[in-house]
Amino acid sequence: MRVYLSGEIHSDWRDEIIAACGDLELVFDGPVTNHAASDDCGVAILGVEAEKFWHDRKGAQLNAIRTRNGLEQADIIVVRFGEKYKQWNAAFDAGFCAALGTPYITLHDDDIIHPLKEVDGAAMAWAQTPEQVVEVLKYVTNIS
Amino acid sequence: MRVYLSGEIHSDWRDEIIAACGDLELVFDGPVTNHAASDDCGVAILGVEAEKFWHDRKGAQLNAIRTRNGLEQADIIVVRFGEKYKQWNAAFDAGFCAALGTPYITLHDDDIIHPLKEVDGAAMAWAQTPEQVVEVLKYVTNIS
Amino acid sequence: MRVYLSGEIHSDWRDEIIAACGDLELVFDGPVTNHAASDDCGVAILGVEAEKFWHDRKGAQLNAIRTRNGLEQADIIVVRFGEKYKQWNAAFDAGFCAALGTPYITLHDDDIIHPLKEVDGAAMAWAQTPEQVVEVLKYVTNIS
Amino acid sequence: MRVYLSGEIHSDWRDEIIAACGDLELVFDGPVTNHAASDDCGVAILGVEAEKFWHDRKGAQLNAIRTRNGLEQADIIVVRFGEKYKQWNAAFDAGFCAALGTPYITLHDDDIIHPLKEVDGAAMAWAQTPEQVVEVLKYVTNIS
Amino acid sequence: MRVYLSGEIHSDWRDEIIAACGDLELVFDGPVTNHAASDDCGVAILGVEAEKFWHDRKGAQLNAIRTRNGLEQADIIVVRFGEKYKQWNAAFDAGFCAALGTPYITLHDDDIIHPLKEVDGAAMAWAQTPEQVVEVLKYVTNIS
Amino acid sequence: MRVYLSGEIHSDWRDEIIAACGDLELVFDGPVTNHAASDDCGVAILGVEAEKFWHDRKGAQLNAIRTRNGLEQADIIVVRFGEKYKQWNAAFDAGFCAALGTPYITLHDDDIIHPLKEVDGAAMAWAQTPEQVVEVLKYVTNIS
Amino acid sequence: MRVYLSGEIHSDWRDEIIAACGDLELVFDGPVTNHAASDDCGVAILGVEAEKFWHDRKGAQLNAIRTRNGLEQADIIVVRFGEKYKQWNAAFDAGFCAALGTPYITLHDDDIIHPLKEVDGAAMAWAQTPEQVVEVLKYVTNIS
Amino acid sequence: MRVYLSGEIHSDWRDEIIAACGDLELVFDGPVTNHAASDDCGVAILGVEAEKFWHDRKGAQLNAIRTRNGLEQADIIVVRFGEKYKQWNAAFDAGFCAALGTPYITLHDDDIIHPLKEVDGAAMAWAQTPEQVVEVLKYVTNIS
Repeated sequence: MRVYLSGEIHSDWRDEIIAACGDLELVFDGPVTNHAASDDCGVAILGVEAEKFWHDRKGAQLNAIRTRNGLEQADIIVVRFGEKYKQWNAAFDAGFCAALGTPYITLHDDDIIHPLKEVDGAAMAWAQTPEQVVEVLKYVTNIS
Repeated sequence: MRVYLSGEIHSDWRDEIIAACGDLELVFDGPVTNHAASDDCGVAILGVEAEKFWHDRKGAQLNAIRTRNGLEQADIIVVRFGEKYKQWNAAFDAGFCAALGTPYITLHDDDIIHPLKEVDGAAMAWAQTPEQVVEVLKYVTNIS
Repeated sequence: MRVYLSGEIHSDWRDEIIAACGDLELVFDGPVTNHAASDDCGVAILGVEAEKFWHDRKGAQLNAIRTRNGLEQADIIVVRFGEKYKQWNAAFDAGFCAALGTPYITLHDDDIIHPLKEVDGAAMAWAQTPEQVVEVLKYVTNIS
Repeated sequence: MRVYLSGEIHSDWRDEIIAACGDLELVFDGPVTNHAASDDCGVAILGVEAEKFWHDRKGAQLNAIRTRNGLEQADIIVVRFGEKYKQWNAAFDAGFCAALGTPYITLHDDDIIHPLKEVDGAAMAWAQTPEQVVEVLKYVTNIS
Repeated sequence: MRVYLSGEIHSDWRDEIIAACGDLELVFDGPVTNHAASDDCGVAILGVEAEKFWHDRKGAQLNAIRTRNGLEQADIIVVRFGEKYKQWNAAFDAGFCAALGTPYITLHDDDIIHPLKEVDGAAMAWAQTPEQVVEVLKYVTNIS
Repeated sequence: MRVYLSGEIHSDWRDEIIAACGDLELVFDGPVTNHAASDDCGVAILGVEAEKFWHDRKGAQLNAIRTRNGLEQADIIVVRFGEKYKQWNAAFDAGFCAALGTPYITLHDDDIIHPLKEVDGAAMAWAQTPEQVVEVLKYVTNIS
Repeated sequence: MRVYLSGEIHSDWRDEIIAACGDLELVFDGPVTNHAASDDCGVAILGVEAEKFWHDRKGAQLNAIRTRNGLEQADIIVVRFGEKYKQWNAAFDAGFCAALGTPYITLHDDDIIHPLKEVDGAAMAWAQTPEQVVEVLKYVTNIS
Repeated sequence: MRVYLSGEIHSDWRDEIIAACGDLELVFDGPVTNHAASDDCGVAILGVEAEKFWHDRKGAQLNAIRTRNGLEQADIIVVRFGEKYKQWNAAFDAGFCAALGTPYITLHDDDIIHPLKEVDGAAMAWAQTPEQVVEVLKYVTNIS
């Protein structure tokens, strides 16, 4: 089973989940999590831009090569919403999965359940901790 | 051509666009824009919930009946990001359109181009004013 | 909007809904609701069968011409589970809709929520009365 | 070839089929067959619910992560209807496969051919015993 | 409902069906039924070919513009196999419909049920007379 | 039937075809054919760009809103290659149609059949004159 | 690359092709080629039928489990038309591939090019000998 | 990750990219790059043609067997436009990818950005050198 870990890149939730799933036959995927590299990849590789909008566009589209493939090939997606930033890319990924019909789990605290109601409304589960995500992954892949 | 107007529901941008496109053969669609009705439709129709999470779930899923159909039938979507709220539903709609391959336009100020870079990166155009959206709609539907 | 009314054919729930939605611009569709005609259409038109299995097969496949088209063209499906019969065809229709990604509402009493948990789990709403279905249809098609 | 074994979880029909197919290059998949675990997985992992409906919803959606992936990846599905319970989930799986165009076989006694006529009508075969299913799997995968 | 009448073009079965369905709200479609025009349309419009193979290719592809659109837009297809010719185009159309998941009915005598077993095996019904086809069309489109 | 006229915008081939098809029930669609408007629409509506690349990008993506919808909704596409310019957009449209499975006709002189062999290889017909295109449209839409 | 060998089962053309492609990294697939087994598999496994039509139906649908999977997973299909029998199943397979967009090659003598014009018209190549098919497979899979 | 290298076959850009990506887990694919073999494969294998048009058709369709499979299976496509020839096949491939939703990168000098604006407009990135393509491939496949 392929698991795509989408969203927040400022805490170590991905590492927690991957480490705790060591015994499962899972392949983990996700976006580039180096914030600076992710922001500047476009101009670093393909040349500088005077306009911030096109600077961002170049980077966003390079990252999209990776994220589109990751989302389309995943069997299950975990979408993490943290405390900082707008995180519209995480909601974008959730909408992308909803259209594909790929099951996804949200991972966020309970103080943002109202603004996330549409995102949660199309999710298969809402987890509040990485441990719960691990338990879900163990459950759905167990050999009963 | 069917145009779906997604996102912010606290200013009159939809009315501006619809009024200015009066001469075009366009059908406009969008979510329920009455904020209270949109939030509480689930429990109002299907019964109260003690938990806020399920209160929101009921409403979000009722609204999804309308929004899914609207997004899937649209030829072009306009996704508006305003100044208030998290607006993850707008980003969710954009991701949904991206997966469907339906062209969409974003409508937002230039102070949020960085957090919207993934959403803009999959868009066909970024407009800063409803007037620009109207010009785009006129242009793409003109009879040259 | 096209609404397909699936499931139980022994009470007048379809008539109730259709009558109460008279003012909405909805097109209603559904299976043949004459039980005897539905059971025997195959052999009545295409010739008798000695084996009950093929008698049923002939009818089921004729009915499927209608139901497949109805389900595929619908924007929203209502799936009604009543008190009698196995009603596997209703659950089959729900699974068919789930795979298509078409939003559906279930309509059933609360004494069967446990056996219907998978069917409800993929639904956008659970209604207990035809009146609630009508309210949902009014809500999702209103012009706010 | 991937074979998904859907439906009844109270007899050992899965084990019979898997054991008898030991020589074939088949990968078997299916739902969690521990009834209690399947019913309660949602609340056990993600927190208790006061309402039975949401208790069931949580579990049904967790299980759906596994079953959706299993159904979508399968080359052939066997859908077993036993003597007990409503088994609407089995019919739901059959409808899901029908919409995907994935071939499925039903496995049930002849006393329920009438209520299963729509489910059988979209099936590639009706088997009455696990042995027959095994023979079908051997036949369709043989190297002539 | 759109009905596509595929296959044999040497008897008046299409006219019979269309005439008898006069009261139904059906749109009928089908291939060009003028045998000479159908065979020679390619070279007549686009220039002569020395090789019979390319003469036929040109015609077959022109006809395919019409037939592909007709098959893809149809809600139900009737595939008629007559007594003469190889009629591989009729079987081709049936296979095309099977892949699309569009319901089709075969119309042929009982002396060719064995060679047509794969074509019939994916059909929703086998009719032996145009009258039966008419009855099927009446049944699946009736307003009960 | 919807006919999309793609490609060269410097001669009046579209007008010729549309005029000659006056009696047919066809809806014609196509790109904006005003060369200057097509090139500059992006910056004219959405603001000037210092870089030619982004100037062109803005315009190309606005035009793509129209062309994508036109190509996806068309039943038949005519792709015209003229004598001037690179015309990669016309070949792009042909590839887009090939992936969608939508029948298309090429319209070009015989001195470019070699470089167009891949584009012609996926086409249903090659016409050398607008008159031939008209005859094809008449043929495929006739009521025999 | 997966190659599906469809059609005629009375000569050794499959063996010829497979043997001659020994050095290529190809996986070959195809229907059951034991004529008697193919005709009678349904009743042999699932019980006898009094009616020839249902005898054939049972077998055809069992075989369809194998052929549908084989056609859907193939990268290239070879469809062989021989001298005997109606071979509607071969044309059915070709139509199925055409709808899926999977490239196929026909293999047949030149005395049946006219009745096969629709089948050839959607093919990527027409071969007259197994040797030519082998050359095509070598060519399309070579590492230049 | 599968990378398809489409377009110009007269310089060694493919070798440069493949060599520089030696450490990455990438599978490279592409068309036959032997120009003469690519042009004449059809008649060489399947028999000579008197007409240049059909000579080319035969070759183009054989090549399409390979290119269609390559494009459909690729996770990322690089489309190279060089200095010579019309290169409509490269633009055709780009359009094909756009319709499939598969991310592609263009590789071309800056003197042709205007005629390539539609092709670039649907691309995820524009590279001017093979080195940049290599950097992109390294970036999107890195394990951060």
